[in-house]
Amino acid sequence: MRALVRDLEKERDFRPEPGVLTTDAAALVNDPAIAVVAEVMGGIEPAGRYMLELLAAGKPVVTANKQLVAQRGAELFAAASAAGVQLRFEASVCAAIPVIKVLREALVVTTVHRILGIVSGTTNFILTEMERGATFDEALADAQRRGFAEADPTDDVSGADAAAKMAILATVAFGSRVTLADVDFVGIQGVTPLHLAAARELEMVVRLVGAATLVDGKLDVRVRPALVDRHHPLAGVEGAFNAVMLQGDAIREITLEGPGAGGIETASAVVADMVSVIGTTATGFLQNDPCWRTLDRLPPGELRSPFYLHLEVDDRPGVLADVARRLAAYGVSVARLIQAPIEGGAALHIVLHESPQHAVSGALAEIVRLREVRAEPSVLPVVSDRGVAELGWA
Amino acid sequence: MRALVRDLEKERDFRPEPGVLTTDAAALVNDPAIAVVAEVMGGIEPAGRYMLELLAAGKPVVTANKQLVAQRGAELFAAASAAGVQLRFEASVCAAIPVIKVLREALVVTTVHRILGIVSGTTNFILTEMERGATFDEALADAQRRGFAEADPTDDVSGADAAAKMAILATVAFGSRVTLADVDFVGIQGVTPLHLAAARELEMVVRLVGAATLVDGKLDVRVRPALVDRHHPLAGVEGAFNAVMLQGDAIREITLEGPGAGGIETASAVVADMVSVIGTTATGFLQNDPCWRTLDRLPPGELRSPFYLHLEVDDRPGVLADVARRLAAYGVSVARLIQAPIEGGAALHIVLHESPQHAVSGALAEIVRLREVRAEPSVLPVVSDRGVAELGWA
Repeated sequence: MRALVRDLEKERDFRPEPGVLTTDAAALVNDPAIAVVAEVMGGIEPAGRYMLELLAAGKPVVTANKQLVAQRGAELFAAASAAGVQLRFEASVCAAIPVIKVLREALVVTTVHRILGIVSGTTNFILTEMERGATFDEALADAQRRGFAEADPTDDVSGADAAAKMAILATVAFGSRVTLADVDFVGIQGVTPLHLAAARELEMVVRLVGAATLVDGKLDVRVRPALVDRHHPLAGVEGAFNAVMLQGDAIREITLEGPGAGGIETASAVVADMVSVIGTTATGFLQNDPCWRTLDRLPPGELRSPFYLHLEVDDRPGVLADVARRLAAYGVSVARLIQAPIEGGAALHIVLHESPQHAVSGALAEIVRLREVRAEPSVLPVVSDRGVAELGWA
Repeated sequence: MRALVRDLEKERDFRPEPGVLTTDAAALVNDPAIAVVAEVMGGIEPAGRYMLELLAAGKPVVTANKQLVAQRGAELFAAASAAGVQLRFEASVCAAIPVIKVLREALVVTTVHRILGIVSGTTNFILTEMERGATFDEALADAQRRGFAEADPTDDVSGADAAAKMAILATVAFGSRVTLADVDFVGIQGVTPLHLAAARELEMVVRLVGAATLVDGKLDVRVRPALVDRHHPLAGVEGAFNAVMLQGDAIREITLEGPGAGGIETASAVVADMVSVIGTTATGFLQNDPCWRTLDRLPPGELRSPFYLHLEVDDRPGVLADVARRLAAYGVSVARLIQAPIEGGAALHIVLHESPQHAVSGALAEIVRLREVRAEPSVLPVVSDRGVAELGWA
């Protein structure tokens, strides 16, 4: 056993046997006694280069590096296939929750057409703390203190971290390459106490939800803050936990929930992948590039979903009629409406029936031009349990 | 491909190719072209005998037969190992939810010390319908109409079906043989509207929960109606869905939820197992008997859990003190207490802190002898989310 490290002298809370640690990548690549390699160094480079060298040398590789897989999967999987060795990546998504194994092995005969996921423990922790009354800054500081959030939390808060994981999940589920650049993501920066209060009013919760959807052979992958009905399995996911719901023809929906991060959890997934590599080495069932087709992207406006719409308006006769008329003109109908008084006016909480996103955007562009509408409106997708398998998502 | 059937002439909603159907088991056993066999006939015999013959003839077998695996696993796994072929059984527990694969392959380096499961879709459907106001009989009839419940629902309602699944899960998780006979099970026959109302009052729900627990190297497997805190992942499992929570050192807790029954769901698991057999055939990693040790059973009274206690008492001064004194004498302390007036007396809803079952039983034996206590009290274990990984269960 060897371990490639940056610094031999660094203080470590374990004492490896002499000769295990090395700073020389070639020592691994050229050692015939090494049967499988775990890449847990993180970052795009030099991790990517090392991985290509190891694969080219015939070493199976197991990785926890989501950005590398999401951004350079095509190249890495091609190198693995060319060398006839496996590249596994369970730990790159949701740590110990075995969603990659389940998709690739247990659902091997099932067509998964949608994945809904809470795949960022940091943002989920922040949102559930905000539900309990904390401010965003307090919740973030708490997440950092507990070690969930990085010192620089930009990738978590912006949704980029969740987007990379959704890209990997979509690639595996749909068999078509989805890279980070293909994922349309919005983070939790814009989530306000107002959204949380509206969600409570509607018996929902706010969650950062990743959605990968296959519609008539076209795919859509996005990450958005969403209102989740409290009966939906994703609504119960609290704190730094993750959950992934897989919807498919033969399985209806299977949800996997658990801690989505953590050193020991990630190590558990890495070692399980190493054992699986050994367990399948002799069979020729290579677990490499899951892509076997190239699907087009669905034009973003065409994705259908129920939406939540928040407006602040002057409390004058006819306002509601004006808003309703604009929605109706675009074929958008109202499922629920709550009007609440606010300082000198009214807040409208409107849940819209499933509609294509472009219809809602079109109606909204007209609504914001109404004299009575005050601040910038908010639009959030809604994830509902009422016939969730039938509902769209945006 | 061949299919062994009881009756060649039976009307089927598919038309197999000529020669596929046979009533002669030997036709499968002796056909060298058959590489793997799926057993989906159900029942103990003749399924068990056929399976032994097939394994002895060197055919890997995939089964959906939970009673056969739970009752005769030792014999079947021994036959498979002797022949050097695999016996897989994913579909025997929770249909398409891949809990066996996750336990055996994804959590290969994790010590699972507790499994909590809602593993009977029929009883879960009945309980959630009763929550919505249906009577037991109405809910059962509805379950039968929808095809969840058998014409004879005894095994579902009594908990025997859930017990067989928990036996299989415990065997795989703990590596020690647990048969149906080792599982202490109580079904939902005794669940009354009173329990459902009490649960609502306490912000909990009633679920039939299977629990397999490892305590200091001893194991306990039981099935009980339980009060589940509404923040616990199992509380959100509604209708005919199943969920299994795996708690272990490296994973904290991972929960898998999905439809636990259904023809197409079961077929999905059976075919995935067949693919996994082929995918690992050449490696010598046999997936047979998961037992590698023999653990003792924990004496049932020693299992620790929080409990819910329901008493109906005369509304006289000193009753509460009398009850509290009996609990205290056994070291059992009260976490929550709600007193509600009933016809000529009071109902006490008492949630007890975690205690060994024998302490609660001892206190209760004295409490029922109090003059003021009217009807037979009810005791249900409580499944709570507050530090669930630390809590016991009974």
